[in-house]
Amino acid sequence: MPSSLIDTLRQIVGATHVLADGDLSAWEQDWRRRARGKALAVVRPASTAEVAAVVKACAAHGTALVPQGGNTGLAVGSIPDASGTQVVLSLTRMNAVRNVDADNLTMTVEAGCILQNLQDTAEKAGLLFPLSLAAEGSCTIGGNLATNAGGTQVVRYGNTRDLCLGLEVVTPQGEVWSGLKGLRKDNTGYDLRDLFIGSEGTLGIITATTMKLYPRPAASLTAWAAVPSMAHAVQLLALAHGHLGASLTGFEVMGRFALSLVNKHMPQLRVPFIDQDEVPYGVLLENSDSESEEHARARFEALLETAFNAGCVVDAVVAENLAQAHQLWHIRENIPLAQAEEGLNIKHDISVPISRIPAFVEHADALLQREIPGVRLVNFGHLGDGNLHYNVQAPAEGDAKAFLRDQEERVNHLVYEAVAAFGGSFSAEHGVGALKVDKLQQYQSPVALAMMRSIKGALDPQGLMNPQCLLPVAADRSAA
Amino acid sequence: MPSSLIDTLRQIVGATHVLADGDLSAWEQDWRRRARGKALAVVRPASTAEVAAVVKACAAHGTALVPQGGNTGLAVGSIPDASGTQVVLSLTRMNAVRNVDADNLTMTVEAGCILQNLQDTAEKAGLLFPLSLAAEGSCTIGGNLATNAGGTQVVRYGNTRDLCLGLEVVTPQGEVWSGLKGLRKDNTGYDLRDLFIGSEGTLGIITATTMKLYPRPAASLTAWAAVPSMAHAVQLLALAHGHLGASLTGFEVMGRFALSLVNKHMPQLRVPFIDQDEVPYGVLLENSDSESEEHARARFEALLETAFNAGCVVDAVVAENLAQAHQLWHIRENIPLAQAEEGLNIKHDISVPISRIPAFVEHADALLQREIPGVRLVNFGHLGDGNLHYNVQAPAEGDAKAFLRDQEERVNHLVYEAVAAFGGSFSAEHGVGALKVDKLQQYQSPVALAMMRSIKGALDPQGLMNPQCLLPVAADRSAA
Repeated sequence: MPSSLIDTLRQIVGATHVLADGDLSAWEQDWRRRARGKALAVVRPASTAEVAAVVKACAAHGTALVPQGGNTGLAVGSIPDASGTQVVLSLTRMNAVRNVDADNLTMTVEAGCILQNLQDTAEKAGLLFPLSLAAEGSCTIGGNLATNAGGTQVVRYGNTRDLCLGLEVVTPQGEVWSGLKGLRKDNTGYDLRDLFIGSEGTLGIITATTMKLYPRPAASLTAWAAVPSMAHAVQLLALAHGHLGASLTGFEVMGRFALSLVNKHMPQLRVPFIDQDEVPYGVLLENSDSESEEHARARFEALLETAFNAGCVVDAVVAENLAQAHQLWHIRENIPLAQAEEGLNIKHDISVPISRIPAFVEHADALLQREIPGVRLVNFGHLGDGNLHYNVQAPAEGDAKAFLRDQEERVNHLVYEAVAAFGGSFSAEHGVGALKVDKLQQYQSPVALAMMRSIKGALDPQGLMNPQCLLPVAADRSAA
Repeated sequence: MPSSLIDTLRQIVGATHVLADGDLSAWEQDWRRRARGKALAVVRPASTAEVAAVVKACAAHGTALVPQGGNTGLAVGSIPDASGTQVVLSLTRMNAVRNVDADNLTMTVEAGCILQNLQDTAEKAGLLFPLSLAAEGSCTIGGNLATNAGGTQVVRYGNTRDLCLGLEVVTPQGEVWSGLKGLRKDNTGYDLRDLFIGSEGTLGIITATTMKLYPRPAASLTAWAAVPSMAHAVQLLALAHGHLGASLTGFEVMGRFALSLVNKHMPQLRVPFIDQDEVPYGVLLENSDSESEEHARARFEALLETAFNAGCVVDAVVAENLAQAHQLWHIRENIPLAQAEEGLNIKHDISVPISRIPAFVEHADALLQREIPGVRLVNFGHLGDGNLHYNVQAPAEGDAKAFLRDQEERVNHLVYEAVAAFGGSFSAEHGVGALKVDKLQQYQSPVALAMMRSIKGALDPQGLMNPQCLLPVAADRSAA
């Protein structure tokens, strides 16, 4: 049966676009090298019709499909399981920009388009596509949609979900739903678009999308503020919302230890205020102005003056030019790399209501330091969205590998229990994938899980779409 | 059985809150008096637990439920059918503000809260809840969510969907899903929130919600521009986006005939530029500034100067004070009343991609005037969202009642076919209700409809939730 399926797939997409031999590690291994699967084949269709035919063929053979974009996800959501029975459906050949409609402030692109290409396409049209995240040079918009990716502009523009006006989807039955009208108001039935967004390939294959575009700001300025506590950072956020309104396009917080790692491993980046011992947090603010750089600077200065007087900023610098702004952002972006330089660590992508973040951090810091002496906390993230990357670095002395092996489960348990106690989420912007399916069962409401399972069963009754992710079908399925 | 159900309902909510006799027209008749149903009873629970118990009791009896908020919908979506077998579940007693969290920019309110109370609650906290529409003094947030209501601030803040961070829902099985965490990022499974939003009470009962709040602008200014064509109005919109960015909070277009009706029936409102024959459209713009009124005025003047020079505005006035601004908005808001004064008319709530609106209007105007001589077109709406209320007034001479009786179906057909040809939607912000179920079958994609029916069947297998709306169960059901 598999070989006849592979023959069929070759007929659909052409023999060169069905990979069944040789080194398939680019498709079988996840980005963080946490897991490695084995594919029956990698299929690379070039059109929606080919995707539909592939899905139909796999459905007829009862073969599971794993859709894959740039394979940059952090939750092991786009690789096959170890059974060697699953087909990886790679969307990267579907990378056309179908249409840019400047007057409608939309563009329609195929799922395999690299995120950076969307940004560039918008820029060429004199417009802005604001989704921005670390993997933008290699992740695809289809993957961004499937995981409802977040990033650094969410405080102003929302998550990927909020930027999407419509989808084209191939259903688990191989039918094509075309929902690419590009309308800002359309109340004609259930919101299928948002159901597919964030469903991580478990309900169907996103093949194209119509995304919102925005006017480009006349100027964007970046500031770095030294703040005396997380509570002051939250206070600064409220002041920034009030002073800048929708011009506040970035608000990132970085803990002192996270910054010290950048300072240690990348001293050339010159972390501001790192020598001031009384500064436990730095905040990166971005102000995007529709008028002029001069106006943006005046507004930024008014904000920072108010913040000084309120005592929630002890020192601050506004980038003088684009190079300085990039340098400040570079520090923020290099925290994960500096962490890796320092050694093994345990990552969390959590969210908590913004108002509760100071209490959460105080509680979690104390808890971890009490329970695991010597542990080091690399806390940074998108405070404007209540989203922290609350990462735990092995103690400076001792065997980091052993620490991870012995403590990872316990650290996760402590952190996720604290997050739950503060009304938060164990996965803010990275999704569930195959990595966190047990956490989903543990922390998602049973009533919600029951509804999700009903929906999965209704739309994908064969259970063939990315079956090991989100809500896995019975674990022994792939061995059947 | 019904009397034993009513006894049970009385035990749950108290006898005074089960209405089964007397004049129930406030709950049985729709807002526009297009339809009148007959309820088995009207039940008015005071808590989520009571709603859950009511739903369970009705499910056990196989009795259908029609959730109702302010009953101000325009698509006959919140009244019972004529069978006398359905229970109306009125949420208006559930009107508590549970929580305002200023630092998280959220508030949690019960479904029966009047929209205006949400606006007032936000204002008291020094914040803004931007949803604003004609019925705000009597519609409820639960109804706004169930229909994904739009209104006049969508160009900046989006539809009700975009303002919602979470829901509490009673499922058709009478279980409570609590999704009120108030997180801006939470990727832990399918997006149930957006599935319930816009589902018009057919998947469960929304009992509470956590909504986003925004900083209040320092100043809001209103301008009225006379534009020489719909294409110029679209050009003005692009200029306004570029100049004002997210400060553009309103962009309404009004056709000359619509304005002439206001001028005729409410001459005291003094419609600007109504004597200038060469002005086919007026545009109302709102500019909400985070800095100051002075700054808002300077930005508005820069925009209008650019627009004059580009030829897309022939005359304009910026309101000098709040009273003048209200007066300009008053003209816009009174178009429906002026229409009613003029006589019977056929209403449409359509959307088309903004870029195609000029061609659509030219096509539809010519088509209708050719097919139905003497017809008068009252065209106005939210151009910033591509949403027009493209209404058709009976010819000035002749019998308007006969016109409606003889022509309504034909007019609808002509308009909706034109909308479909231009890639638009037959229901932009009013929903489907019971009024437009045939249009949904006709114009929604069959693949989408099949998925919607699967979801309805999965979540409400008994088919008891608002069964005559959106995707009706077999028409003979209520007679069974």
